[in-house]
Amino acid sequence: MDLGVTDKVRPLIEQVRKMIAEEIEPLNEVFFAEVGKHPSGDRFKHTARQLEILDELKAKARKRGLWNFWLTGSDEGYGLTTVEYAYLAEEMGKVPIAAEVFNCSAPDTGNMEVLERYGTEAQKARWLGPLLEGEIRSAYVMTEPGVASSDAAQLDFRAVRDGDDWVLNGEKWWISGAGDPRCAVYIVMAATDPDAHKHSRHSMFVMPADTPGVEVLRPMEVFGEDDAPHGHMHIRFTDVRIPAEAMILGQGRGFEVAQGRLGPGRIHHTMRAIGQAEKALEMMCRRGLSRTAFGKRLIELGANYDIIANARMEIEMARLLCLKAAWMMDTAGVREAQPWISQIKVVAPLMAGKVIDEAMQLHGAAGISQDFDLTRMWTHVRTLRFADGPDAVHRRQVARAELRKYTNEKI
Amino acid sequence: MDLGVTDKVRPLIEQVRKMIAEEIEPLNEVFFAEVGKHPSGDRFKHTARQLEILDELKAKARKRGLWNFWLTGSDEGYGLTTVEYAYLAEEMGKVPIAAEVFNCSAPDTGNMEVLERYGTEAQKARWLGPLLEGEIRSAYVMTEPGVASSDAAQLDFRAVRDGDDWVLNGEKWWISGAGDPRCAVYIVMAATDPDAHKHSRHSMFVMPADTPGVEVLRPMEVFGEDDAPHGHMHIRFTDVRIPAEAMILGQGRGFEVAQGRLGPGRIHHTMRAIGQAEKALEMMCRRGLSRTAFGKRLIELGANYDIIANARMEIEMARLLCLKAAWMMDTAGVREAQPWISQIKVVAPLMAGKVIDEAMQLHGAAGISQDFDLTRMWTHVRTLRFADGPDAVHRRQVARAELRKYTNEKI
Amino acid sequence: MDLGVTDKVRPLIEQVRKMIAEEIEPLNEVFFAEVGKHPSGDRFKHTARQLEILDELKAKARKRGLWNFWLTGSDEGYGLTTVEYAYLAEEMGKVPIAAEVFNCSAPDTGNMEVLERYGTEAQKARWLGPLLEGEIRSAYVMTEPGVASSDAAQLDFRAVRDGDDWVLNGEKWWISGAGDPRCAVYIVMAATDPDAHKHSRHSMFVMPADTPGVEVLRPMEVFGEDDAPHGHMHIRFTDVRIPAEAMILGQGRGFEVAQGRLGPGRIHHTMRAIGQAEKALEMMCRRGLSRTAFGKRLIELGANYDIIANARMEIEMARLLCLKAAWMMDTAGVREAQPWISQIKVVAPLMAGKVIDEAMQLHGAAGISQDFDLTRMWTHVRTLRFADGPDAVHRRQVARAELRKYTNEKI
Amino acid sequence: MDLGVTDKVRPLIEQVRKMIAEEIEPLNEVFFAEVGKHPSGDRFKHTARQLEILDELKAKARKRGLWNFWLTGSDEGYGLTTVEYAYLAEEMGKVPIAAEVFNCSAPDTGNMEVLERYGTEAQKARWLGPLLEGEIRSAYVMTEPGVASSDAAQLDFRAVRDGDDWVLNGEKWWISGAGDPRCAVYIVMAATDPDAHKHSRHSMFVMPADTPGVEVLRPMEVFGEDDAPHGHMHIRFTDVRIPAEAMILGQGRGFEVAQGRLGPGRIHHTMRAIGQAEKALEMMCRRGLSRTAFGKRLIELGANYDIIANARMEIEMARLLCLKAAWMMDTAGVREAQPWISQIKVVAPLMAGKVIDEAMQLHGAAGISQDFDLTRMWTHVRTLRFADGPDAVHRRQVARAELRKYTNEKI
Repeated sequence: MDLGVTDKVRPLIEQVRKMIAEEIEPLNEVFFAEVGKHPSGDRFKHTARQLEILDELKAKARKRGLWNFWLTGSDEGYGLTTVEYAYLAEEMGKVPIAAEVFNCSAPDTGNMEVLERYGTEAQKARWLGPLLEGEIRSAYVMTEPGVASSDAAQLDFRAVRDGDDWVLNGEKWWISGAGDPRCAVYIVMAATDPDAHKHSRHSMFVMPADTPGVEVLRPMEVFGEDDAPHGHMHIRFTDVRIPAEAMILGQGRGFEVAQGRLGPGRIHHTMRAIGQAEKALEMMCRRGLSRTAFGKRLIELGANYDIIANARMEIEMARLLCLKAAWMMDTAGVREAQPWISQIKVVAPLMAGKVIDEAMQLHGAAGISQDFDLTRMWTHVRTLRFADGPDAVHRRQVARAELRKYTNEKI
Repeated sequence: MDLGVTDKVRPLIEQVRKMIAEEIEPLNEVFFAEVGKHPSGDRFKHTARQLEILDELKAKARKRGLWNFWLTGSDEGYGLTTVEYAYLAEEMGKVPIAAEVFNCSAPDTGNMEVLERYGTEAQKARWLGPLLEGEIRSAYVMTEPGVASSDAAQLDFRAVRDGDDWVLNGEKWWISGAGDPRCAVYIVMAATDPDAHKHSRHSMFVMPADTPGVEVLRPMEVFGEDDAPHGHMHIRFTDVRIPAEAMILGQGRGFEVAQGRLGPGRIHHTMRAIGQAEKALEMMCRRGLSRTAFGKRLIELGANYDIIANARMEIEMARLLCLKAAWMMDTAGVREAQPWISQIKVVAPLMAGKVIDEAMQLHGAAGISQDFDLTRMWTHVRTLRFADGPDAVHRRQVARAELRKYTNEKI
Repeated sequence: MDLGVTDKVRPLIEQVRKMIAEEIEPLNEVFFAEVGKHPSGDRFKHTARQLEILDELKAKARKRGLWNFWLTGSDEGYGLTTVEYAYLAEEMGKVPIAAEVFNCSAPDTGNMEVLERYGTEAQKARWLGPLLEGEIRSAYVMTEPGVASSDAAQLDFRAVRDGDDWVLNGEKWWISGAGDPRCAVYIVMAATDPDAHKHSRHSMFVMPADTPGVEVLRPMEVFGEDDAPHGHMHIRFTDVRIPAEAMILGQGRGFEVAQGRLGPGRIHHTMRAIGQAEKALEMMCRRGLSRTAFGKRLIELGANYDIIANARMEIEMARLLCLKAAWMMDTAGVREAQPWISQIKVVAPLMAGKVIDEAMQLHGAAGISQDFDLTRMWTHVRTLRFADGPDAVHRRQVARAELRKYTNEKI
Repeated sequence: MDLGVTDKVRPLIEQVRKMIAEEIEPLNEVFFAEVGKHPSGDRFKHTARQLEILDELKAKARKRGLWNFWLTGSDEGYGLTTVEYAYLAEEMGKVPIAAEVFNCSAPDTGNMEVLERYGTEAQKARWLGPLLEGEIRSAYVMTEPGVASSDAAQLDFRAVRDGDDWVLNGEKWWISGAGDPRCAVYIVMAATDPDAHKHSRHSMFVMPADTPGVEVLRPMEVFGEDDAPHGHMHIRFTDVRIPAEAMILGQGRGFEVAQGRLGPGRIHHTMRAIGQAEKALEMMCRRGLSRTAFGKRLIELGANYDIIANARMEIEMARLLCLKAAWMMDTAGVREAQPWISQIKVVAPLMAGKVIDEAMQLHGAAGISQDFDLTRMWTHVRTLRFADGPDAVHRRQVARAELRKYTNEKI
């Protein structure tokens, strides 16, 4: 169970870390300062400067071969293992735009996996190519406003067959990345057989984002932030007509596609969260060492030593658990790895949220202000407690896997 | 130790609750929807509709005699005890604009207390009168960007004597309410004797907000929110000249004024936080009863029963502790009550933050979106972990009070 | 809602505190040093010295009128309220034998309540009198080894009618106080109508402890301690024959009697736990002030200030909650008070366990040894997380009470 | 960073697990049932049956080559890595006498390491040989009653030079294993140069346990348990005279020896604690599946799913962290591994204590009784929060290591 940095990935980590620190982080700030400065005032339109930043950085990364690392266990790309990729994800988690620079950002990686694994040749040609090139972006259209979407069986956005077409109607929300004007393609889950067994009710489709009848209603805000220009959009579909060839894998197999999609993405998310926790711990140490009160460095006051020690221990443990989940995925497959993936889905965002919160507290009121990046980090990891299933659902999965060791009865 | 609802305050609670539910809460939403709609685009200018809402509600409250409840132990007003007022503060905490409607909002109540207790007749006539009438608003100008302000001895914003005047220079931030165009008066803490003993370095001044040389640099944002039009402003003072009569209580007595100010305000803050926790618990129960997943009401899934039980227990305990602190203030005075005030400063915001966070989680992603009010509530109670001193400082005070029972040595 | 020390109870608290500190505490140590020194080697037989200690202390207490305080709301005794009694219970919780000295110890108080409230005149004459006089002791025989007794409906110890008698068969365990040779009377719950509705299956009986067929199998140990000579005994009943007059209240009403019994006892238990937490906090402060490491007093190392502050805050809150539960019992009755009683059943033992555990940690290894009383205290409060129902059952009750505010459906 | 089970250790784990389950566990119960049955009544004398059990099991283990696994990185024995050994330690942690059967028990392993690494040839010949053979046992005599021994500089047990001898005087306590009549040798830390720099004050000696002047005063009890016949003894040295050749490594180098000794032992302790947590989790699952209340399996009530999931996640993480610490020891040496060793010293016992406590709670009152082994397990891991340094000291070490990344100033 080698969870370490391999010789293969070590130089990549170095290059990625260096490029993030020297080239991406400074421009990241510029990028977000531009939000809302498009002449139209539309926060979901990129300014020229924003596009320039992304294009130049992506071109550089690509030229250096720092591209599509996420294609684990694949003939294309580096052929990294998930464990190896995990270390890169941690680095990319430290700066918001970094993952995109290396064409490793959510939800594109998950969508590309879907297309690569389940797509027809035509679907691949049309969508996977440009995504791998970083020319377009994508969205994964699953969550619905009317129901607890953690129980996928309840999703009732409908697709009805009409001749050679499917006609889609309903609302979806929290569609991440759908605010980005470059988002060209949607992967959409829709109920095609609502009376079938709960795992056969839905089908998955791939379709152009600009299909008539698709209407972006509003950005969902997270703690008041709209995450522009990426966005988590609320979308209405009204008689949206797509051809039969838009279906992925086959009718009634949407659940299967969704399951296959979620494993690696959760590992990427959690390792990025760990990157953020590391960054917060560093900020906490530096602040505590540089500031004084009551005649002492902050670090020596109150329980700050314990807070720092606990943060270090919890980060170490969460990272090791993520790496083990990655290793399970590499060696035993996504199905066997499921209980570990559920474990890290619960553990890492909670841990990161706690560490970032402590970092805020040690920064004083400045820590929750725009002068530091801590609130953005906290808000991001807070959303991860819902994304890809709420904590409660994953805890239940972990418990069921445990109990099944001791009983053959239904759990 | 009567911590209950007295016959005197019971009808007031009923009236306040009814007015909030029926008249204030509906308009609260309208009020905040107007933010940023002033023709100038300035979020810190009220629209006509906003002013109308406030004026009408305040007029109604005043007409009904629901006004200035906070004047506890005073000849003016109701002569409520702090315990009695605490119950009203809890109700007012449930809706953001409610406290102002009853002329009970921070930081005005604390500032009025300062003026009433320590002000000269001239200071009272000029500022206390209009504040009691709700005609103007005020700000308390203490926290500084360059130092850990929890150690007040470090504050180095300067006031230098020049003839009959004092000349003020430096920066202050997190000046709550200073964004409001109606904010007419500042109470300012400044170092007048920086080499004196740490408790005699500072003096307190009262001055018009529009004194030349005062420049509002920017709103501080809290988790990205600017809290417009109230605001927590970053302000620069450049050669701001105020007359000697602007001093409160006497040179070198700023620390004393600051101490006297903080007791009641902390009780108000924490009881309002408890009001928010109650509201979040109600939201959590209603959501959990009305929504289903996996064939059950949400409430029956996972650990939700325990989460609700824990929330109820923690709210009950925090409220009782706040009431005891209030009772200590009423019966033994602010100095004796200090350890209890420190206790509730730590306990109540942490508890409320936890309950609200659980409420978010039970709401699914909607819980952290603009569709519910939970993020605003959470963000507000999060700031309370810094306001009037960070948790760590208050925990230290509690421990010192405890240890002094057993030693005469320095603690 | 007066939760304070009344003028009536204040002098009693003083007398009780003084007698415990000066007379009981020193002999308490002697008493327990005698355990196992009976010539027979039987730990459940008192030595002459033990009996002498108890008799003399009880005689003193009685002579001073410090006796049967627990008879709240009664014509006999002091007529204290439950709130008033709670303060006395806190004091008595600090030393193990103290409660018995004042004839206020479990399970006698609960059993006396049962007899007073539900007993026939004959039952009262035979058993209640001597118990009130402190001449005999009693046991409450409910919990069974074979089933989760938290679900009382599952209890299947049987009583079968045979002519004018009932014949009892089965096993009971955790019968507190049944190890004491002075334990003369049992109150026993038995299934008389096992097929009836779950709340009508059982009846309650009162019977002599030395009835033929009763066999004490062994003491149950708690963390290796047998709690001799009190004991928590495992008992077997084989064809134990008792007359029809031994039934309390009526056939099928055992559940009703059990419910009525449990309210006050839980308040006594939790207030005694709070007394122990207070004692542990004092020990922690004194140790931390008197011992040094790395050139500082222990108290100044690590997070010890925070640990002390947290302990103080949690004790304060738990006590206030217990007092509120007591006040509910006094003013609204045991039924209305139930949710609060469940709350304190969860909160107080957990809190006390945590405080005592921290006190151990600050004492170093000595803290878990026989050189301090902390392990006995910890073990005792640990059992309270099961006694009178495990935490999980009480949390469920609290949640149900909360949810019923918002629904008429079955919860 | 291979943290997995290697091909080399896999068959050993299987053999050890099988022998523990089939041969050791059944006799373990018999062994402890014999405690106190020696004709003398002395709990610290083995009965014939106890000696027979140990001898037979040890002979079997030895014959199968399951012996002295702990000799990691050594020419003798298996040459296992610490990571490999860790997996064996986890298995041996599940049954109290198991580690001794394989000659892998504390404190012998640490003492053998000391002798192997620092001992003279004469010291090795006399003591190391018989220890490696499992013919005698040993004790490590460091902790003192009068001072906070976590600050080793404070230890003031004295050794004074007198001609060719050293004369030892003072008290030591918590001397684990010194109750065992087979304990033939002590390794003793004593102040030889009390005025020297704090790291040069002490020297280490090896001496026969039966040297005149050594007096075992009493067993220290842990939660009332004396851990007989192993014991944690309180010992008085009165003019104990040992020859100069008894010194290990050299005068003033006691601290150095102590530091070198503690690394591997902490890993063994924590992995054994993890073995106990695993056992508790299994017990919790089995109990929860087999018992019912309110018409459901216990497992489906309250928050039990979450409790089980959390236990699984915390065990996984703590184990991975222990394995990483072991790997650091293997690859970077004990000095570099220190921060990780401190981390697991804090994390693993706390985690195990929590899991065992939850297992007790799910077992109902039986869980804290003699009918299950949970209290012994809990008590054991509770002591680990002191053994080899209290949590607070290790947290401080972790924080200091973290802060040193960002400053060259004294931390």
